[in-house]
Order: sequence, then structure tokens, then C-alpha cells
Amino acid sequence: MPKDEQEFVVTPWEVRGEIDYEKLIRDFGTSLITDELLERIKKYTGELHPLLKRKIFFSHRDLGWILDRYEEGEKFFLYTGRGPSGHTHLGHLVPWIFTKYLQDKFDVELYFQMTDDEKFLHDPKLNLDDTAAYAYENALDVIACGFDPKKTFIFIDTEYAKTLYKIATQFAKHVTFSTVKAAFGFDVSTNIGLIFFPSIQAAPCFFPSVLKGKNIPCLIPAAIDQSVYWRVARDVAPKLNFYKPAEIHSKFFPSLMKGGKMSASEPESAIFTVDSPELAERKIMNAFTGGQATIKEQMEKGGNPDICPIYHYYKILFEWDEKKLAEIYESCKGGCLICGDDKQKLAERVGSFLIEHQKKRDRAKDVIEDFILRD
Amino acid sequence: MPKDEQEFVVTPWEVRGEIDYEKLIRDFGTSLITDELLERIKKYTGELHPLLKRKIFFSHRDLGWILDRYEEGEKFFLYTGRGPSGHTHLGHLVPWIFTKYLQDKFDVELYFQMTDDEKFLHDPKLNLDDTAAYAYENALDVIACGFDPKKTFIFIDTEYAKTLYKIATQFAKHVTFSTVKAAFGFDVSTNIGLIFFPSIQAAPCFFPSVLKGKNIPCLIPAAIDQSVYWRVARDVAPKLNFYKPAEIHSKFFPSLMKGGKMSASEPESAIFTVDSPELAERKIMNAFTGGQATIKEQMEKGGNPDICPIYHYYKILFEWDEKKLAEIYESCKGGCLICGDDKQKLAERVGSFLIEHQKKRDRAKDVIEDFILRD
Repeated sequence: MPKDEQEFVVTPWEVRGEIDYEKLIRDFGTSLITDELLERIKKYTGELHPLLKRKIFFSHRDLGWILDRYEEGEKFFLYTGRGPSGHTHLGHLVPWIFTKYLQDKFDVELYFQMTDDEKFLHDPKLNLDDTAAYAYENALDVIACGFDPKKTFIFIDTEYAKTLYKIATQFAKHVTFSTVKAAFGFDVSTNIGLIFFPSIQAAPCFFPSVLKGKNIPCLIPAAIDQSVYWRVARDVAPKLNFYKPAEIHSKFFPSLMKGGKMSASEPESAIFTVDSPELAERKIMNAFTGGQATIKEQMEKGGNPDICPIYHYYKILFEWDEKKLAEIYESCKGGCLICGDDKQKLAERVGSFLIEHQKKRDRAKDVIEDFILRD
Repeated sequence: MPKDEQEFVVTPWEVRGEIDYEKLIRDFGTSLITDELLERIKKYTGELHPLLKRKIFFSHRDLGWILDRYEEGEKFFLYTGRGPSGHTHLGHLVPWIFTKYLQDKFDVELYFQMTDDEKFLHDPKLNLDDTAAYAYENALDVIACGFDPKKTFIFIDTEYAKTLYKIATQFAKHVTFSTVKAAFGFDVSTNIGLIFFPSIQAAPCFFPSVLKGKNIPCLIPAAIDQSVYWRVARDVAPKLNFYKPAEIHSKFFPSLMKGGKMSASEPESAIFTVDSPELAERKIMNAFTGGQATIKEQMEKGGNPDICPIYHYYKILFEWDEKKLAEIYESCKGGCLICGDDKQKLAERVGSFLIEHQKKRDRAKDVIEDFILRD
């Protein structure tokens, strides 16, 4: 908990304050992705994804080890997921787009977990019908990202519990209340479902190895707030004779409002994949920016793209060209770019993106069963 | 925890000391089965099972309410279970035999839970292969008791987790660590699987109602050490719009050694259904009794059947005739019955019982799939 306004909070359920990513890496015990590591990745991928170049994916655990295994012919699998507490917003798509890049370049399987149980257990207002409905909606967005149906397995915790519970139970035997209290801040008022849940989120690090009958390395692309789960999973893995899962972490995606990250629970803070282009435009036009109070001031002093959500939208999703992104950055800073124009251009790109994504989303309804893993 | 030697301990994992059943009823907040209630049961069953007459089943919660519902045409279902940590001993059979009597007389369904997860989570030495193997062995004994295959559903927690986990999660949302700490004595060193487990043991109170799409009353016949589970289940039931489960509790079954109850973890304390008649005879002949040190003393002072496991074996399983049981009791007390003869007679009955039970157990192997509930 923050002692004063300057501190920040990062847990799987809350991201608040101005994030100091270097401190976060120290606190969580993860490592920065070095240029050497980027060069190694490039060896296999041919090109580096902009999200790596731009250090949106910036931190890792054991990524070098994953590449070692790969070099020796031992393929890893990818594991990521989504807590289905609402519709998918554009920020959610960013790690999925990156995960698809990893799937394509390394030709590997993806196990995608829908943690409907966790969202239900955490939010007093949600019931399991709500979370099941969102899990379905979110799955359409995952599929719309273009994952390979032959190599992609989406599972919903309460539906896939037969496989998950058995391995989660083996995991849980090695984790005490003390451990989850320290790791997740649980206390005596925490419900016993949430106390057990870290076992369910750990299970997909291991069950593909059980299904295939051999130990398979696991690489988890996810926002860094999830890393506490994997820290516990990594501690237990050797006791169950599995590899420790490796991780690659992204930063958070800024809210359209001032401060904080995009949040499904604050509809104005994010653009959802089901929003109409008109609604998206309205949200963008109403967004906070790094600009000055007046056009005159903006032209004189220049804006601050580093704190501007509009600029960040370009950076994380809507301008993959490094040169063009740099132009936006410089012209904002130099005062040549007026916020209204900047927003209008972004709104057009977002609008086109939504139309395209929503088509893919509709087509996903016909093929969703090809992706759902059942036990 | 006992403050001195005179106190006793009853938890789902430990029964120790001289049990004061009246104090237990007060502590657990259950009720004695009154003669009025026995008369009501007789109305439907025609005859009272000796285990009721002899007050082996002696305590309850809401048994009158179950009969009210039954009277109004609303059938209940039975729910009981077994923790598969070892082979079945004769003491385990007693509540099952009583449960079969209830199934026959009321013509109702039985859901039988194998808590392999709990035994695995509780015992550092057990793995899930061990508990799965014991669950299979124990299921043969359940079936050998003669339950109706059309109305009896045996399920193993880790195998039936798809159905169990979903309802357990809904249950768990209403139970905090504080609650299970107070109810089960859990502390910060308890593993998170065991902390969650009361939700899994509560699930069968409710899932038959979910499967049938209507609320069905539930009656649980079990030893009284399990009642703490149902107390928590009863607190939560109304929040999930289910009936509170009703209960009927038995006393514990004495060890063949002095003090304590039969225990699968102390092989000499109990006769197992897989024991040969010869082994059973040896255990009986070596058993503690309520007799005097010498035959002479026994004839002069008489024995004490109340503390004698041999007498209790007759009482709970091997002499259903009230008159004959009274004869054994009186002739022991009067000094006419010598322990060696008493043991020899019991050994013969136990031997015949085992031969017969083992035949039924073998036949159960061919029909076990008719009983196993899968999701």
C-alpha cells in the first residue's frame, strides 16, 4: 500500500500511481531485456517486433534459457490468459498480438486461460454466468488476432476444471497460506476460493507437459502485474519435477483519462473491441493528452508525448513504423502537432481497425469450437 | 486441543481421548435423536435399524425437517463419502450399511464422494496415484454393501472436478480464511488446497439439485467428526438458494487396541475387508477386551462390556438380534463369558462375513462402471 501520493501499487487486481518500472523490476526480482537478448531473439525471428524494440515488452525471467532450449531443438509452448470481467479493450490486444508474433516466428503452441473463476471470486457483483458470457466474448477477440487454430487451445477454468483441478491440487500441497499472504496480500477476510486460485493459474504452466507425457518449457507473455503468480509457480515447479516457467513482461497501457491504466471497469478509460467507430472517436476526442491548455501555448512550448495516451496508442498499436512514430513524437514536442488533429488522425486509424477487427470477430463465432480445449 | 489427559479431541483428521458424546453434541450444536423422532422414522421404515435402536446413530440436524419434506412428497437424497487413504475397515462399513437401509426404506438416491484430494493434501506421504488406487478399492466395498446401481452415484473428487469445482467456487466465495481457521483449526502453515477443500466437500450437498434443476433436500449419514463441514455448508446454503443439508451422526467405532477409534493408519487396530479370515482371527485374539486379568477373576468379578471392543463389534455389526446381544452383555458382566470364547465366536462370524463380503467385492469389479458418476 502506498504511504504517500508518490508511491505506486501493482498487484494482479490493482495498478495505481506513477509506475517506476525500474523499481518494479527490482521489487519483483525480474530482469530487463538486454540488447544482447534482443539480438538473440532476432536470430530466430528475423525481425524484432516493435513492441520489443520500443521496450513495451521490457522485462523477463529465464528468456535466455528458453532460447537455449529452443537452440537445442526443444520447443517451448506459450501460455497467457485473460480475466473475463468485461469486454476486451485495445490494451488487452497488445500482448495477444505480441503472443501471435511469438507463435508465428517460433512455430509453437499457445495455451490461453480464461480465469472466469478468479474474476467471479474477486468481484462481489459478478456471477458465473456473467464471467462465462465475457469469456466467450473475449475468446472471439483472441481468435480475431489470427492465432493458428491447430496450435491454439483456449480453455475456461470452470469448464476445464477436470484437468486443472488435479494438477492445481498437486501444486497447492506445496503452498501455504503464509506464502499467498506474503505474495498476494491475502488476509483472514480473503475468501477460500481466491486463496486457492494461484494453484489454478499455475496449472497451465504444467498441464501441457502432463498431456504430452514429457517436460516442455513454458514461456508466458503477460503484463508485469501477473509476475507474482509465476514467482510462486517457479518456486513450486521443481518440487513437481517440472521446468520453471519463463516469462516476458509488458508495461501497462495508459488510460484515456489522466493516470492509471486502461480498465474494463471504467468504460471511458478505454476503447473496447465492440465499440462503434463513432463511440471510439468520441472517447478519443474527450481523452486527456500531454498537450498545453491552448493551441497558442502548444505551439510555443510544445506538448509532452511521454505522458500522452494518444501518443501511446500510436506506440503500442497504431503506428508500427519507427520513423513515422518518431515524427509524431517530435512534432508534438516541437509544438507543430495540435492535440485535436492528433486525436482526429488516431480516431480514423482506430475506426478502421475496429471495423476490420469486428469482421474477424464475427467470423470467429463460426470457428470458436476449433479453439476451445475440453477435457 | 486438550488441556489435560481427561479432555478429548474430535476433528475430521483426529479422534483422541475418551469421547463425551453429550459434550460433543453441545459443542457441535447438534441434537440428540429423541424417541419421538425414532417413532416418526419407524412410520416410514416399518422397523428401526438396530444402529438407531442402539443409538450408534445418535445425533442429527434437521432430521425432522427431512421427514416433513418426505411427508409432503418431496424426496431427499443421501450423501456420504470416504477419504481413500487406505483399505476399508469394518468400522467404515457401519455407516454404509446404515445408508443402504435408508436408501431401501425411503427409496432415494445416494451420492457417494471419494475425497482423494483431501487425503492427498493432508498426508505428506500420499500421492494422487495412491489415493486413486484406494478410491477404487474402497468403491468395491461400497458396492459390496448392496446399493442400488440405478440410484447410487460414486464420484472421485479429482475425476469429477468439472462439476465439483464450479459449485465449490460459488460456495468458496462466501467462506473466508477466518471461518475455516475457526471451524477446522487451520493456520498460516496450512496448504491452500486444504484451505479450499471444505468447498469441495460441501459441493455434493448442492450439485444434485443443480443437475436436476430443482432444489432437493439432502440427508448426510456420517460419523460426527464430519459435522464441522456441514455446519459451514449449512451457513452458506441459503446464500446460494439451496436447502441446508440435514445430518444424522454416528458415534465412532472402537479400536481393537485400548482406546481410540479404528484407524486405517494402524493396521492392528482394525479388521480390513481385504484381510483373510485367519488374519482377522489373529487380530481379534490379540485384541484388548473389557475382561479381567485371569479367568478366575473374570468369573468372580465379571467383565466390562462397555469398554470392550469385542462386545462393540457384536453391537455395531455382528449381532443384530437385540435379545442375543443382551445375553452377551449380561453373561460378560456376570462373569459367565470368558474373553477367549467370546473372541473365538466373534472371529468365526467375522470370518464368514469376510468370505461373503469378499465374494461381493469381487463381483463389484464387473459392475463398478455402473456406479461411477462422470462429468
